[in-house]
Amino acid sequence: MIGIARDGPAPLRNLRLLLAYDGSAFHGWQRQPGLRTVQACMEEALARITGEPAHLFGSGRTDAGVHALGQVAHLTTSCPIPAGNLLKALNDALPPEVRVLQTEDAPLGFHARYDSKSKLYRYRILQAAICPPFIWRYVWHYPYPLDRRGMAEAARAFLGEHDFTSFAVSAQAADDDFGDPGAESERKSKSMIRRIVSSRVLWSERRRILVYEVEGSGFLHHMVRNIVGALVEVGRGAMEAGDMDRILSARDRTKAGPTAPARGLFLVHVEYQG
Amino acid sequence: MIGIARDGPAPLRNLRLLLAYDGSAFHGWQRQPGLRTVQACMEEALARITGEPAHLFGSGRTDAGVHALGQVAHLTTSCPIPAGNLLKALNDALPPEVRVLQTEDAPLGFHARYDSKSKLYRYRILQAAICPPFIWRYVWHYPYPLDRRGMAEAARAFLGEHDFTSFAVSAQAADDDFGDPGAESERKSKSMIRRIVSSRVLWSERRRILVYEVEGSGFLHHMVRNIVGALVEVGRGAMEAGDMDRILSARDRTKAGPTAPARGLFLVHVEYQG
Repeated sequence: MIGIARDGPAPLRNLRLLLAYDGSAFHGWQRQPGLRTVQACMEEALARITGEPAHLFGSGRTDAGVHALGQVAHLTTSCPIPAGNLLKALNDALPPEVRVLQTEDAPLGFHARYDSKSKLYRYRILQAAICPPFIWRYVWHYPYPLDRRGMAEAARAFLGEHDFTSFAVSAQAADDDFGDPGAESERKSKSMIRRIVSSRVLWSERRRILVYEVEGSGFLHHMVRNIVGALVEVGRGAMEAGDMDRILSARDRTKAGPTAPARGLFLVHVEYQG
Repeated sequence: MIGIARDGPAPLRNLRLLLAYDGSAFHGWQRQPGLRTVQACMEEALARITGEPAHLFGSGRTDAGVHALGQVAHLTTSCPIPAGNLLKALNDALPPEVRVLQTEDAPLGFHARYDSKSKLYRYRILQAAICPPFIWRYVWHYPYPLDRRGMAEAARAFLGEHDFTSFAVSAQAADDDFGDPGAESERKSKSMIRRIVSSRVLWSERRRILVYEVEGSGFLHHMVRNIVGALVEVGRGAMEAGDMDRILSARDRTKAGPTAPARGLFLVHVEYQG
């Protein structure tokens, strides 16, 4: 704790944090008893620095093994340390697998989850025969042929508004994966409908990495990894691009492909209004 | 063990392997009781596949935390599995932190250590304010100003033949760091003289990574890391480029700078004749 003398209760402020983390070092975002999670790591560091119990709200959960280049979170605190100093103090206190990229004061009403307008995810599939030992935690190593044109066509089927039940982890658990548990999660609808504004397949010949990039209003639990699983089914010829519409319409998880491994997935950016 | 039926003793062959590994996952190259080392990992996998005890000779040791993009090793074996199949079987058997990039049959006389003509090392210093969580194991994060021109000038002082006593871990232990212990190490001279054919500082503005690349006939224990330590002393103004000659002449370890961290160092390439 860095103690700062003050008279009377300090005014509350809202801190907005931009975070990057290596998901392979954590059991996901969300605090869980006895497990090393990003939220718990962050809250411990914040409590140590501010001298107050810290409750951090993320823009959403990420599963164990899923990485972030630009996770957004907020924290209400009466700690008077300037945002810039907090950035330095946090990175000194945190393990190297999680970094605070930005800290800034936000309006008291700002909420990292409820105010998010869209999210951008990136999924990386390594097509090289051998996976370099420095990147195996950050790609799905799939060294077999993939029909990238078919995958690109299939990817376009997800554009627009759809009921993504077939691509959610299960009807029961398919609550928005970005909800914090408890009463507040009621504020977002239980609808399985999400709007996808960008869904595309990119290819780096030099690195032999196929990238799937998807941006949307929100994502159900496992939704990106299930879409990637289906795209790879198309890529290897086990499904056709035209099957995507049929699978979406079925609203049945068993109709889609397998779930792609967590380690290829990155939360790249969370967009807010203004 | 993959058993292969055969009559009588199979002829000996010499296998040459090209390896990459993430040094942060190992206690260095060399087998040590109770520790996870690259050599031990490799020998266990080889023994499992060939059904014979395996003794692997590396081009040299690498310390704990030091990485390899192109370590070379050889193994004498009577295992008849074709080199290409061994590559696949080894990578299936090995942990993802070490990969076999090539396997090929070499002349029986080939020795990964004694036949090496030169080695190329690369050292990476990250100059960004914040170290991304995905690369902290692979750089020295040094976010303070460095005079790259001074460092480049200092780097040139190491070109040619020099007695590198001042840059070896200690007079006692400054045996060629690439020797296997035991009688065979006598075959290489105990001389502290090494010939450096390339020594340069590179800079990537986009990634804010300063790279020191050095190629030479051989390197003493900690020699590259001690050179980098001295270069950083020059970069931060605590030494001058002109001091390098004086330090070399002193043949005294206490005259040089500190040892740079292992995690920034990569063994890039080992050169053989022909």
